[in-house]
Amino acid sequence: MSTKSIVELSCPPPLPAKETVLLGHGSGGKLSADLLRDVFLPFLRNPVLARLDDQAVVAISGQRVAMTTDSFVVKPLFFPGGDIGSLAVHGTVNDLAMGGAVPLFLSAAFILEEGLAVDPLKRVVHSMQQAADAAGVQVVTGDTKVVEKGKGDGLFITTTGIGVVPEDVELSADRAQPGDKVILSGSIGEHGIAILAQREGLEFETTIKSDSAPLHTLVAAMLRASGEIRCMRDPTRGGVSSTLNEIAQQSRVCIELEEWTIPVREEVRGACELLGLDPLYVANEGKLVAIVAPEAADSILQAMRKHPLGKEASVIGTVQEERSRSGRVMMRTTLGTRRIVDMLAGDQLPRIC
Amino acid sequence: MSTKSIVELSCPPPLPAKETVLLGHGSGGKLSADLLRDVFLPFLRNPVLARLDDQAVVAISGQRVAMTTDSFVVKPLFFPGGDIGSLAVHGTVNDLAMGGAVPLFLSAAFILEEGLAVDPLKRVVHSMQQAADAAGVQVVTGDTKVVEKGKGDGLFITTTGIGVVPEDVELSADRAQPGDKVILSGSIGEHGIAILAQREGLEFETTIKSDSAPLHTLVAAMLRASGEIRCMRDPTRGGVSSTLNEIAQQSRVCIELEEWTIPVREEVRGACELLGLDPLYVANEGKLVAIVAPEAADSILQAMRKHPLGKEASVIGTVQEERSRSGRVMMRTTLGTRRIVDMLAGDQLPRIC
Repeated sequence: MSTKSIVELSCPPPLPAKETVLLGHGSGGKLSADLLRDVFLPFLRNPVLARLDDQAVVAISGQRVAMTTDSFVVKPLFFPGGDIGSLAVHGTVNDLAMGGAVPLFLSAAFILEEGLAVDPLKRVVHSMQQAADAAGVQVVTGDTKVVEKGKGDGLFITTTGIGVVPEDVELSADRAQPGDKVILSGSIGEHGIAILAQREGLEFETTIKSDSAPLHTLVAAMLRASGEIRCMRDPTRGGVSSTLNEIAQQSRVCIELEEWTIPVREEVRGACELLGLDPLYVANEGKLVAIVAPEAADSILQAMRKHPLGKEASVIGTVQEERSRSGRVMMRTTLGTRRIVDMLAGDQLPRIC
Repeated sequence: MSTKSIVELSCPPPLPAKETVLLGHGSGGKLSADLLRDVFLPFLRNPVLARLDDQAVVAISGQRVAMTTDSFVVKPLFFPGGDIGSLAVHGTVNDLAMGGAVPLFLSAAFILEEGLAVDPLKRVVHSMQQAADAAGVQVVTGDTKVVEKGKGDGLFITTTGIGVVPEDVELSADRAQPGDKVILSGSIGEHGIAILAQREGLEFETTIKSDSAPLHTLVAAMLRASGEIRCMRDPTRGGVSSTLNEIAQQSRVCIELEEWTIPVREEVRGACELLGLDPLYVANEGKLVAIVAPEAADSILQAMRKHPLGKEASVIGTVQEERSRSGRVMMRTTLGTRRIVDMLAGDQLPRIC
């Protein structure tokens, strides 16, 4: 990890006046949280939304139904390991899965820019269908709008998903407790670096592929292994650091990571050093972090490692009883120091999903 | 109604090669149907989507749940009678209601353009909340993305709604039968003309307001009055003509309208004549058409007229047993002639919702 980028990220640059929307408001980091707190929550306040999980869980005729939505504005539309279509399916399937829900049905709304070629659009729709088939979900309803040339950017897709939450499952970002273990399902940073490399025309010895994948069967295996999972999140925009900061804040605990336990592929580490990025802040689209009871960690890890998407699962930290650091993420570094891992401050990588 | 505009609309202009997306693909008319048929349905085919209703009805633990999604790209964001926020709530509530569903929960995904002022964004979110409160639905989950300046247009909102369909309700656009009556809930064209007037800076003696409103309580009153409603649709993009053409095609029947029975406010008629538009093709956001069994029409009309949004409800036509005109909408005109009412062919009014 490059020290330079860590320093930059810990000291947010002076921001312009907040009266207008900045690119960083879409980063998944601190500015996104500000926007949510200042603009959305004051008006849309209700108990379900206020939980700030990646999915809402509501009761319909006594059945707990999870609902989640995401707009995808990734640029470019096609990248190594996926495209906006497969990403839109995986992202929404994963947000349902993180609440322990079994994903069932998706909607897909397309905002097309006038002049978009129909051929790539067909490829994207085809890719969505393949991803939906592979994940065992159905795209049951949709919408298409067209905006004038120069008022959009090719193609934006908003997918919304619904699924059912099994009776005994209760996952939420406010349930982490001192002593809990932090599990990460595999190596980090691949999606963000794949997009960035494609966008900037960077070439590395090995092509870095997005890790975009549906995580619901991995989650199902974990839930079968133990009832002691507190919460799960997929560290997308803002990366592992922002995700863990959100959990630490919502559970009012301190999370301590051990740097040497966090898997980063060699080529991703190299690309990050070259670009001055910290992999902890780079988006993933096929990884999850789970906070689990300490006694359950081993059996959950075993179950994960039997799954193709959890082979490299490991414990990367613990939840601490440290009042003065409540709501914080700390890191024991390979150098033996201890530092704060803050939320992403600015707009490290816009339009990554 | 201006004869000029009718002639123009019946003879679609020669279209450019179909390899790129045109503004008209978002019109809700013929080109939208082409795009759906050529690009989306070949890949996303499944029995639920193939019904092509405005909402999908799926079974979750034995309960019928309706799901619908719509992106809103209306321009300008604020207009007489509403704004993109209230419209996004009403549009999705109405799509659920048209399937007979009781709307319960909404998601809202925002695509913001860098540089958008935060103040109008707050006003929009506030307006969404007021519309949701008034309609008795909750916005339970959301998402925000930001795109670079020049890659969006201020603000796009995608709302997705879920609701429950009562046990005895079975509405679908393929259920119209010869002899059925066509009911329209009120005067047409107000939303489209309000937007257009605002956008083009046109001034009329009276400000024409959008009719944007949630229709689910009107629908509930209709369903209480009779079990003999075949289908309902809200004639938004493409107007009453396109909506009835879709029903005629899906039910393989001919629908005959009587021109003099269709209510159009004087100021809307005047604006349409000035602009060379046919009100039958202009979008509504607070009106519905219903196809009902002939013997049930009177009691349904009575129930509608007791509701504030159905005071001007009337029968505007009948479903005919006319094989040679199957899938067509015909109109008996005030001049005593009979003409074809086609789907909207081009892009009469882009970005109306």
